[in-house]
Amino acid sequence: MAGHTMRAAVLHDVGKITLEERPRPEPGPRDVLVQVTAVGTCGSDVHYYEHGRIGDFVVEAPLVLGHEPAGTVTAAGADARRHRPGQRVSLEPGVPDLTCPQCRAGRYNLCPRMRFFGTPPVDGAFCEYVTLHEEFAHPVPDALSDDAAALIEPLSVGVWACRKARVAPGARVLVTGAGPVGLLCLQAARAFGATDVMITDVNPARLALARDLGATTALDVRHTPLADAAFEPDVLLECSGHPPAIAEAVRAVGRAGRVVLVGMGGEQIPLPLSHVQTHEIQVTGTFRYANTWPAAIALAASGRVQLDALVSGHYGLADVEQALTAGARDPTLVKAVVRPQE
Amino acid sequence: MAGHTMRAAVLHDVGKITLEERPRPEPGPRDVLVQVTAVGTCGSDVHYYEHGRIGDFVVEAPLVLGHEPAGTVTAAGADARRHRPGQRVSLEPGVPDLTCPQCRAGRYNLCPRMRFFGTPPVDGAFCEYVTLHEEFAHPVPDALSDDAAALIEPLSVGVWACRKARVAPGARVLVTGAGPVGLLCLQAARAFGATDVMITDVNPARLALARDLGATTALDVRHTPLADAAFEPDVLLECSGHPPAIAEAVRAVGRAGRVVLVGMGGEQIPLPLSHVQTHEIQVTGTFRYANTWPAAIALAASGRVQLDALVSGHYGLADVEQALTAGARDPTLVKAVVRPQE
Amino acid sequence: MAGHTMRAAVLHDVGKITLEERPRPEPGPRDVLVQVTAVGTCGSDVHYYEHGRIGDFVVEAPLVLGHEPAGTVTAAGADARRHRPGQRVSLEPGVPDLTCPQCRAGRYNLCPRMRFFGTPPVDGAFCEYVTLHEEFAHPVPDALSDDAAALIEPLSVGVWACRKARVAPGARVLVTGAGPVGLLCLQAARAFGATDVMITDVNPARLALARDLGATTALDVRHTPLADAAFEPDVLLECSGHPPAIAEAVRAVGRAGRVVLVGMGGEQIPLPLSHVQTHEIQVTGTFRYANTWPAAIALAASGRVQLDALVSGHYGLADVEQALTAGARDPTLVKAVVRPQE
Amino acid sequence: MAGHTMRAAVLHDVGKITLEERPRPEPGPRDVLVQVTAVGTCGSDVHYYEHGRIGDFVVEAPLVLGHEPAGTVTAAGADARRHRPGQRVSLEPGVPDLTCPQCRAGRYNLCPRMRFFGTPPVDGAFCEYVTLHEEFAHPVPDALSDDAAALIEPLSVGVWACRKARVAPGARVLVTGAGPVGLLCLQAARAFGATDVMITDVNPARLALARDLGATTALDVRHTPLADAAFEPDVLLECSGHPPAIAEAVRAVGRAGRVVLVGMGGEQIPLPLSHVQTHEIQVTGTFRYANTWPAAIALAASGRVQLDALVSGHYGLADVEQALTAGARDPTLVKAVVRPQE
Repeated sequence: MAGHTMRAAVLHDVGKITLEERPRPEPGPRDVLVQVTAVGTCGSDVHYYEHGRIGDFVVEAPLVLGHEPAGTVTAAGADARRHRPGQRVSLEPGVPDLTCPQCRAGRYNLCPRMRFFGTPPVDGAFCEYVTLHEEFAHPVPDALSDDAAALIEPLSVGVWACRKARVAPGARVLVTGAGPVGLLCLQAARAFGATDVMITDVNPARLALARDLGATTALDVRHTPLADAAFEPDVLLECSGHPPAIAEAVRAVGRAGRVVLVGMGGEQIPLPLSHVQTHEIQVTGTFRYANTWPAAIALAASGRVQLDALVSGHYGLADVEQALTAGARDPTLVKAVVRPQE
Repeated sequence: MAGHTMRAAVLHDVGKITLEERPRPEPGPRDVLVQVTAVGTCGSDVHYYEHGRIGDFVVEAPLVLGHEPAGTVTAAGADARRHRPGQRVSLEPGVPDLTCPQCRAGRYNLCPRMRFFGTPPVDGAFCEYVTLHEEFAHPVPDALSDDAAALIEPLSVGVWACRKARVAPGARVLVTGAGPVGLLCLQAARAFGATDVMITDVNPARLALARDLGATTALDVRHTPLADAAFEPDVLLECSGHPPAIAEAVRAVGRAGRVVLVGMGGEQIPLPLSHVQTHEIQVTGTFRYANTWPAAIALAASGRVQLDALVSGHYGLADVEQALTAGARDPTLVKAVVRPQE
Repeated sequence: MAGHTMRAAVLHDVGKITLEERPRPEPGPRDVLVQVTAVGTCGSDVHYYEHGRIGDFVVEAPLVLGHEPAGTVTAAGADARRHRPGQRVSLEPGVPDLTCPQCRAGRYNLCPRMRFFGTPPVDGAFCEYVTLHEEFAHPVPDALSDDAAALIEPLSVGVWACRKARVAPGARVLVTGAGPVGLLCLQAARAFGATDVMITDVNPARLALARDLGATTALDVRHTPLADAAFEPDVLLECSGHPPAIAEAVRAVGRAGRVVLVGMGGEQIPLPLSHVQTHEIQVTGTFRYANTWPAAIALAASGRVQLDALVSGHYGLADVEQALTAGARDPTLVKAVVRPQE
Repeated sequence: MAGHTMRAAVLHDVGKITLEERPRPEPGPRDVLVQVTAVGTCGSDVHYYEHGRIGDFVVEAPLVLGHEPAGTVTAAGADARRHRPGQRVSLEPGVPDLTCPQCRAGRYNLCPRMRFFGTPPVDGAFCEYVTLHEEFAHPVPDALSDDAAALIEPLSVGVWACRKARVAPGARVLVTGAGPVGLLCLQAARAFGATDVMITDVNPARLALARDLGATTALDVRHTPLADAAFEPDVLLECSGHPPAIAEAVRAVGRAGRVVLVGMGGEQIPLPLSHVQTHEIQVTGTFRYANTWPAAIALAASGRVQLDALVSGHYGLADVEQALTAGARDPTLVKAVVRPQE
């Protein structure tokens, strides 16, 4: 394959992505080479595109974004045995060092040497081919579309949040924010057994979609403040990222409740200490996920979670900028998907 | 109400239940008086009827059986505030002392001073009225039939087993035995997020019902031994109670798996120690349940669990013996329900 | 006993406690009557004395403070069987309703109907006799002094914090604040197996005591800021209650760390969200304790925790005001103990 | 270093170990080369020596036994950065594949592709030099002797058992069997906070040593059957491996207790099902350990656990057979240590 090239959408500067020919990557010994079929776009892609950085991660050299990829295995490294060519896969886009104390403890998402797609300086998947350690390429059944296989990544965020929050039958769950992550946290919460899930947003279209996807209450907080909703959740999955709203939502949580901060909300937020203490509320944040792919694939394949319903548009590699700005142009859109082969 | 009587089906001797007039019970200060509308029959009722004892519990005086009751609150004690007359309730049939170390630690099912319906010397619910501590009478929504409200009790057994087994999305679950407890463990496992649930039995009718209720595989072990089924569960919910089958099922469980012994299988069973050690399998048994009613009611009310589908016949108080022997006459029957008001 | 009186130190107004004769309380059916031998003073007693309120709890009628009592059983209610007269006991000073969902789940410290000593409108133990449910009076061995039996209460705060933080061998623990609670959290952490415990304060006398009690490092943060200490804890037990210091300490915590907010720090604190998310730190607060007395007594009786070493003065009932103001007069003092019989 | 040789004690047949010259191993890219200073002998070494197999593991080619090694780093592979030459290390003697689902979940001890010292076909440490992945060579402080650094391995067994059993302050612990594993489980249980630990055996010398090492009761079951000891443990750490005794010990365990089967007891054991169910006892087995070295080293370095006290003799490489048969000749001996450099 040496000498082969591929097309890639490359971020060169804030607001500037260009389509280029690049060498097709070569799989390492335990890697597979994957022809990318679909890549979801994510708020962090948009953030890098618009600001050139997220916190300490700064784009200092041309970078391929995209970390929600699905594809088809086309080749494998010398020691890779797991997949045959033609296997459709969903890619877990971060590969840790596997040997550090965090990895050995099963918390590989916290590995300080993680290499994560589309995060400087590691290229992502808005391109035709990527390579990945074979154990991080997860086979998907035919029941899953390419789009759904790509959206296993954000679904994993929801699965991870529900694990952290110990969602189970009987839990009352509040999801703040009905963007893609909120809608997937909602669906994950239902798949973990929650029968009573309220979601909040200010966007009627997204709230309507949330109702279709199983929210028992979809609250428009422009008209009804959360404090008036008479809902005392056991679990808060915070997906809005708006600091003022976070404290209000934490204050709603009942005794022994769990708060998971899924959406990024800046460097610092005000924590209602007195409520947290007297109610012994557990607050934590999530950073990506670990060991979620098999469960997320099973949920999507069984129909318990609807992924295709979130897709609001498809874009070719030449239109990655369009994909990344679609949400700003029309906030009713949920998830733009890039299809590098089209 | 003093001086009022009621009808009760009373076990006087092995194989002998007679219908009698008895004083209607008076609620204590924190009790409600409940008019019983439906009571499920259980294998332990049958065992007391046929053998006069279960282990150390011996029927030494006339006893009313029945511990799966639903009903309607008709009166309340002086200090009981939770329910109004007319409230339909599902009854949690064991009231612990609430003050011992087990109770204070939240494990009230292990309270050594538990008073449990239909367990010598405490009378059960095959009668027109019972009294119960108001906090153990759980309100049910209109969406639940009386039968379903009664069957919250065996559903609680399944919910408790799934909690002990830590069933969640991604878990592969094996349920051995498709009797009432097995069918409810199956449904509970699915409600906890399991997408891959195999159930085993030797009764084709029960296996067919299991398929209808969501089993992904229903295995007739007369034709296919478990060892040939190529299924490596993470979780075994043992509901067969057959000691030889238990060891075989434990041996199928994968690394870090959980085994919950739900069905009684005699004083002692052989444990495949080497497999348990090298795979670090966790084995535990369940004894009734604690804090399950709200979750079980929510699951049934939301339609995630089908309870009415298990009911295979209704019987009046005069026909309790018929109800208890129905299963022996026709093993395809799953759950006989007694309706004391009919 | 009817007609007997006793002496009690009664808070009548901010800064005004007077010694009075009151009727000796009568034990209820499950209560014991306890002659109080020692009562620790706590920051919350001081706060009520100085401000007349803590948050929503307002002193609106004369109140006896004191919630760290030990004593001797002298009589028992009609249904109380646990203790014989003469039994020395440490009193768990809050009695929940035992029947609400929080209680039944084992989280009785979160019972909304908790009645807690020295918290309006419930009288405390700065008096000669108190009554208490027999199951909340815990027998102590002769190895424990009266003072130590009283200080089982604040030790319980430390035990509870260590349980919440999952302290165990291998954990690196940071305790911020070397007041009584910090010194007991330190000792509890060591008793839970921590071999590496740093404590911070600005008071050299308290830091020296911390070293004597087992701190591996006692850091004077006036001279060395925490950020320069090159210590990355797995666990932060926050006992300073100073909001600015809390955020700095949280920022020091390593990946997958646990933060327990033990000291009260006002209504709201700034939470370093980005650090909490990228490190998946779990933050929680403690509210009193549940099921801690037997463990705390065992630790103190075995010598693993030193309680008498914290006592810096004894006071009679007539000197309760002196006891409550001792710490303000001399901040090197740790724990004043009231002895109502002297 | 190519061409260098070393001495190794090689098992050629049942009961036949010979001293040989072998090529000194070459470290792989992430390996360190370690000069072995001390190796504990273990019952499994003895079993291979006497029977040539343990279960499915059969010695089919000459094998070097020994899996409790300590040593000094003398060289490192091209990509190994963790240690400098001269670093004293305790070796975690099993290296998993790090990429399989069990490894990624943090349960690397259950990795099906584990390569473990002294287990066919992987050579162990009864030799002068070994190589190991640098992350499995753990630095030890000067406070630890070479013997103690070697005995971190069996201490890890005890630490792992205590984690599985959730030992913490307040737990009552029963250890059955006062051999090396039992004595280390005892010490680990105390280090995890247990103040009440009973140990049983039939060997007075070992029981006396157990008392010295912190057992609150050391019971000679030849004179006092366990059932007469009036001790109801929360935790049973089963280290005797005698099937008849196991069932008796399980029956002693109290409500919600945890049983960890540490010692091997044959293919199958009788499990007292009725007791396990009515008391909801959790039974599990341990298979080696994961993520225990740092905690075990900290415990030994801090003096909480005594390792040197277990050593009952030192042997050179020429005397490995003497080391392995010492225990059979004198059952009061606890731990023979091989010192390959002497």
